[in-house]
Amino acid sequence: MNTTDIHELRKDPLLGRWVAVLDRPKAPGDYSFPADTDHGDSCMLCAGREKETLGDILSIPRSGDSAGKWWTRVIPHFAPVFRVEGDLGRRGDGMYDKMNSVGASEIIIESPDHAVRPEDMGLDQMMRVIKTYKDRMADLERDARLRYTFIYKNSGSEAGAVYSHPVSYLASTPIIPKRVKEELDGAKQYFAYKERCIFCDMIREEIRTGSRIVLETRHFIAFCPYASKFPFETWIIPKRHHCAFQDITAEEIEDMSFILSTSLQKLRQCFDGLSFNYFIHSAPNRIPRKDHWHTLGEDFHWHLEIMPRLLRTSGFEWGSGCYVLPTSPEYAAQYLREVK
Amino acid sequence: MNTTDIHELRKDPLLGRWVAVLDRPKAPGDYSFPADTDHGDSCMLCAGREKETLGDILSIPRSGDSAGKWWTRVIPHFAPVFRVEGDLGRRGDGMYDKMNSVGASEIIIESPDHAVRPEDMGLDQMMRVIKTYKDRMADLERDARLRYTFIYKNSGSEAGAVYSHPVSYLASTPIIPKRVKEELDGAKQYFAYKERCIFCDMIREEIRTGSRIVLETRHFIAFCPYASKFPFETWIIPKRHHCAFQDITAEEIEDMSFILSTSLQKLRQCFDGLSFNYFIHSAPNRIPRKDHWHTLGEDFHWHLEIMPRLLRTSGFEWGSGCYVLPTSPEYAAQYLREVK
Repeated sequence: MNTTDIHELRKDPLLGRWVAVLDRPKAPGDYSFPADTDHGDSCMLCAGREKETLGDILSIPRSGDSAGKWWTRVIPHFAPVFRVEGDLGRRGDGMYDKMNSVGASEIIIESPDHAVRPEDMGLDQMMRVIKTYKDRMADLERDARLRYTFIYKNSGSEAGAVYSHPVSYLASTPIIPKRVKEELDGAKQYFAYKERCIFCDMIREEIRTGSRIVLETRHFIAFCPYASKFPFETWIIPKRHHCAFQDITAEEIEDMSFILSTSLQKLRQCFDGLSFNYFIHSAPNRIPRKDHWHTLGEDFHWHLEIMPRLLRTSGFEWGSGCYVLPTSPEYAAQYLREVK
Repeated sequence: MNTTDIHELRKDPLLGRWVAVLDRPKAPGDYSFPADTDHGDSCMLCAGREKETLGDILSIPRSGDSAGKWWTRVIPHFAPVFRVEGDLGRRGDGMYDKMNSVGASEIIIESPDHAVRPEDMGLDQMMRVIKTYKDRMADLERDARLRYTFIYKNSGSEAGAVYSHPVSYLASTPIIPKRVKEELDGAKQYFAYKERCIFCDMIREEIRTGSRIVLETRHFIAFCPYASKFPFETWIIPKRHHCAFQDITAEEIEDMSFILSTSLQKLRQCFDGLSFNYFIHSAPNRIPRKDHWHTLGEDFHWHLEIMPRLLRTSGFEWGSGCYVLPTSPEYAAQYLREVK
């Protein structure tokens, strides 16, 4: 792929899910599997090779250092699915619906150091990474064409990572992604019935029972959800009710850096060579559509989900949407609490 | 795992998705990855070793043969997630909800021959496999506790296969699986608006445009859906409107055997060593809940989805529910049409 490739967004008429379709044939022979994940010496994301990428969208500068003067950098994706140019161009296609893939695809380089693992980069660096997430989300929220900004991380080839350099990704989209919409709808339905935030209720329930808690800090809890998809899945959620990640305070960033680093360290202690994903679920962009999700401030609560990739999914999961947990969340939390 | 392990079903309070949780700790060290997939000489599913499994639920007998007198066999799963004994036992668990994992977990052995690939087993054998699916679904539909019977296949380790012997699986569940419910709801919504079956409309649209058709027979079409999840995803759907797979006619079975075998052969021609899943989406059990999905006969249409596993999913897909297709359905269908 190169930077001239264009995608279009198509809507699944049955499920309402949008997919991005590359407007160019990738032939059967072009699929290689598993993807090569170690770029070693040829890594363009390393410090000192800034000229080989498309230029910084944002960076946290590092003073007095010879090998690349930055702590974190955000660059345009090498093969962007979402592009900033143009209008939405919503249109029909026979009985189907499509639109232009307007948005942003960015790579968040988490460290100048190629080999550092996210849980080993230290609390200061993790704070810079979280700060970088926040700044990019706050910036993209201003674009009236965009409905949602999604930040995610792939670590290890089982988790779909293509770079061994520590990176996260950002995808800003003109639609609210299906999985997020399901959470918004579920939370709204609960709020309509109970007049309480479902996430706040979960936090209280988890603290009360304690059995699924991995770690509790002043501002966050890390816990294994009651009915998670995958064994050892861990959510990190702020105790303070707030729908939007980008409103995180400086003190919360410091606390989140600790609980995220520690949770990842604990998972790595349990599983050597673990592949995992994590992603942030935050509210849709509030500007200029505040009215559309008018109860959103009350009924949604941002959080981060860590998904260890211990099992390969089969036709059962893909076809039914049901999952089997060979380790219960209670046992998983106990293992994670007990490791150093 | 052994046959005394019990699962419970837990409901995700946010998404309404049920997960089965094993009531016994599988420790971190018990996860091996990737799973071993070749049992070779030790395969208990092969002809002649029938005594080592739990006994036939159903089999299609084969006369005058020494090496196992059957063409297909259905046996209880070695590690069943769903069990026939007991009642549903719906109950609360703090703020959450759970129930017993009542149902059926079965293994459908597709051939006495360990090494045959599904697309190479021949049309007669494929017909027996489809007939076996039909007979099991029709039988399980009579159990008033069960809402849904789901048949799926995993082929290759990337697709979550654990046996190299050709098998399919059956899971009969006391709930309608989330992914199926989404299709039912989507189809119902379309029907409410258009007063036509969305699948019948898709069939007409695909035949009209032709660009996504892989193969057309008298009773079926195989096509790459307009907004599929995965590249080269192929659906096989009967032209005759019918909601329930188990009502398939003998003539349709013959035709389906041909179109399914040929579609799998074409995929294998494009991708050597392909891992794939397929599964059948049919209507929920109609007995005794005919009234519950009262428009179901009109608004749902059974089909089979083949999912080639060419890409590893990342945090993007899991966290957003969006997908990226590097090959458009039009190009994929063209490649598949053109291979022998």
